[in-house]
Amino acid sequence: MRRASAVPAPAVPREEPAEASAVVDFYGEHQAGIATEPQAHCTFVALDLREDVDRAGMARLMRILTDDAARLTAGSAALADSEPELAVLPARLTVTFGFGPRVAALVPEKPSPEWLGPLPAFSVDRLDPHYGDGDVLLQVASDDPLTLAHALRMLLKDARSFATVRWHQPGFRRARGSEKPGTTMRNLFGQIDGTVNPVPGTRDFDDLVWIADRSSWAHGGTGFVLRRIGMDLDKWDRLDREGREQSVGRTLDSGAPLTGSREHDEPDFAAKNAVGFPVIAEFAHIRRARLADPSQRIFRRGYNYDEPPFGTGVSHSGLLFASFQADVTHQFVPIQRSLDELDLLNEWLVPVGSAVFVIPPGCAPGGYIGETLLGA
Amino acid sequence: MRRASAVPAPAVPREEPAEASAVVDFYGEHQAGIATEPQAHCTFVALDLREDVDRAGMARLMRILTDDAARLTAGSAALADSEPELAVLPARLTVTFGFGPRVAALVPEKPSPEWLGPLPAFSVDRLDPHYGDGDVLLQVASDDPLTLAHALRMLLKDARSFATVRWHQPGFRRARGSEKPGTTMRNLFGQIDGTVNPVPGTRDFDDLVWIADRSSWAHGGTGFVLRRIGMDLDKWDRLDREGREQSVGRTLDSGAPLTGSREHDEPDFAAKNAVGFPVIAEFAHIRRARLADPSQRIFRRGYNYDEPPFGTGVSHSGLLFASFQADVTHQFVPIQRSLDELDLLNEWLVPVGSAVFVIPPGCAPGGYIGETLLGA
Ligand code: HEM
Ligand code: HEM
Repeated sequence: MRRASAVPAPAVPREEPAEASAVVDFYGEHQAGIATEPQAHCTFVALDLREDVDRAGMARLMRILTDDAARLTAGSAALADSEPELAVLPARLTVTFGFGPRVAALVPEKPSPEWLGPLPAFSVDRLDPHYGDGDVLLQVASDDPLTLAHALRMLLKDARSFATVRWHQPGFRRARGSEKPGTTMRNLFGQIDGTVNPVPGTRDFDDLVWIADRSSWAHGGTGFVLRRIGMDLDKWDRLDREGREQSVGRTLDSGAPLTGSREHDEPDFAAKNAVGFPVIAEFAHIRRARLADPSQRIFRRGYNYDEPPFGTGVSHSGLLFASFQADVTHQFVPIQRSLDELDLLNEWLVPVGSAVFVIPPGCAPGGYIGETLLGA
Repeated sequence: MRRASAVPAPAVPREEPAEASAVVDFYGEHQAGIATEPQAHCTFVALDLREDVDRAGMARLMRILTDDAARLTAGSAALADSEPELAVLPARLTVTFGFGPRVAALVPEKPSPEWLGPLPAFSVDRLDPHYGDGDVLLQVASDDPLTLAHALRMLLKDARSFATVRWHQPGFRRARGSEKPGTTMRNLFGQIDGTVNPVPGTRDFDDLVWIADRSSWAHGGTGFVLRRIGMDLDKWDRLDREGREQSVGRTLDSGAPLTGSREHDEPDFAAKNAVGFPVIAEFAHIRRARLADPSQRIFRRGYNYDEPPFGTGVSHSGLLFASFQADVTHQFVPIQRSLDELDLLNEWLVPVGSAVFVIPPGCAPGGYIGETLLGA
């Protein structure tokens, strides 16, 4: 993925724009942007299809967007790119497409995953319809924010006669190069977030993430859940360090479980303290988020958001919680239900947006994303 | 500025978080964040002081914010930092403070630069008061967006009992490492933007930027203008490449003047084409922006913005035009007036925000930003 430089390494690393020309392959069995190591910037956009877009129109849209994405992710200008100079540094650009229920319904004879549609209601939810649902998802991610802005604009320009923007949610992690690739990100609570996660490239990941039903048009795709979750930083800051660590079951500095000393130590949920209470409390987020059935796991790939505060506030922040799983009903929903029932972290969280999409499989050169649904 | 790593350079550059620990000195004759090579991310925030904040209160606020800024820019946690883990990678973090007219008026016996206050009205302006003016400016910039978010929150938390947020404008350039340091940025029109600019470290820069009046509390400081300028990308895209290049007087690919071949070639404003018209048109932005008097120049250090579109739009983008100059009336205003009178680029631009601040000089350890005004 990283293009090796032919010239010897410069005395001072990073003077050369090596990373910025790094390309993530667009074509393949699965769409890029899922198993891809998370880029620094990611914007999630949902489109609403115009009334008159039918199956053929939707196929036309996806052919155009696929062509744009294939070119832009390779560092080439889109067809009729109005700012070709902004397309030259992909910086690991990926474009990942998803379909909502209305797209699936364009082809009623091909059954879609039964979980496609709004999630069940959870008691913690305070959903704002402005951040909910949608017909087509674009997940556009790059290590470079200018590349991302340009790519997204090219896609939206080409989608304009088919669809309008429903919502648009930009997020970030640490800059590429701030930390060793593979370092788990921190969220705005300061927590290491993403430690226990299926590892791309393993059989475990493949089993949990990719839809394996060969009779389905979604075979080789996955299920995507986006939850926009407000984080009340002011309230969080009033909690002492011990309380914060208890609420999750992990320490803030290394991210180790309260029963261990290193980030990737296995938590010991049975361990008790001197007075007989569990070291990792019953209400701890990591206890509640881990179900007994190991097939009920998800792959998390979220981003922080931090927007202009309003009123007398100083922050307007949270997490774009994004997860991929083959079966939303079997994997995501029971975890979210368990957290809804009991999770101390809920004290500081408010889910304000929720959306579910099928991510179609990848395609080969000459094909287009969505062809298994929209094609013959 | 770059901390050399003690270990040998790794085979693959940028696997090591070298850049992220780079520190820009906070203390000095001038504030950091002006002559500093622009970081990838920058957020401009204006505060409104609470009614009851007097000179002593303002001095208290600036002592606290100075202490925060000195620590955070060095990669240390702020006092009572609620998320110290987010403070460890400064990634060239700078915090630059500015004062609006109300702060200057707290100390009426010390005269302030006469240009401090709203700019004269320009016919192109369509100003939204939501993006105008303010009492205290914070310019917070870093190559890492998480570092920036955390630093800004620490500053705003500490400012909260003195002031409220008036506006908050985040901007970006290419990621650090995407291009060689020193590469001129591109804006969202795809233009190379910033070519003709005083060069930090030169006498020319110092003369144009720093206030040289030894009798003034602002000595060693500068004047800051922020113009939020909407860029109509849709309209721009309808213009052909030649028209775009004519509007500025430079080519899109290399940024060379239409009379030259390389970015830094000197434009020949007298050159005529075959039919006797000037090669760089009378209405070209670079002709109109260059005045005859070389003391009437400014230092530009702007950022792109790209926000969620609304309605049926696909972009909501522009430039946070930021310039530093010792004398706003003598340097900025005549240039802006010249552009207001004639500049083809105006066809695609709408200034929607405008603010002017005095940037006080820097301080030494033990001192605080603003002490020349607020102190004895
Ligand atoms: C803003 C909201 C959230 C925050 C701040 C948060 C934070 C965390 C943190 C700090 C950890 C421990 C480190 C790690 O393994 O990543 C964790 C683990 C986890 N979280 Fe969350 N989380 C949030 C929302 C959610 C949601 C909505 C779900 C799913 C419905 C979820 C599912 C999980 C899972 C499955 C784990 C791993 C549990 C295990 O150890 O097996 N989280 N989260
Ligand atoms: C969104 C608004 C603007 C855009 C897109 C823009 C774009 C450009 C571009 C492409 C150049 C040529 C390359 C360079 O030297 O940087 C330029 C030059 C310049 N611009 Fe602007 N500009 C904008 C607003 C302004 C404003 C508001 C001012 C000052 C009032 C200004 C002052 C200048 C100056 C002084 C130069 C250098 C002229 C010279 O060659 O001597 N620009 N601008």
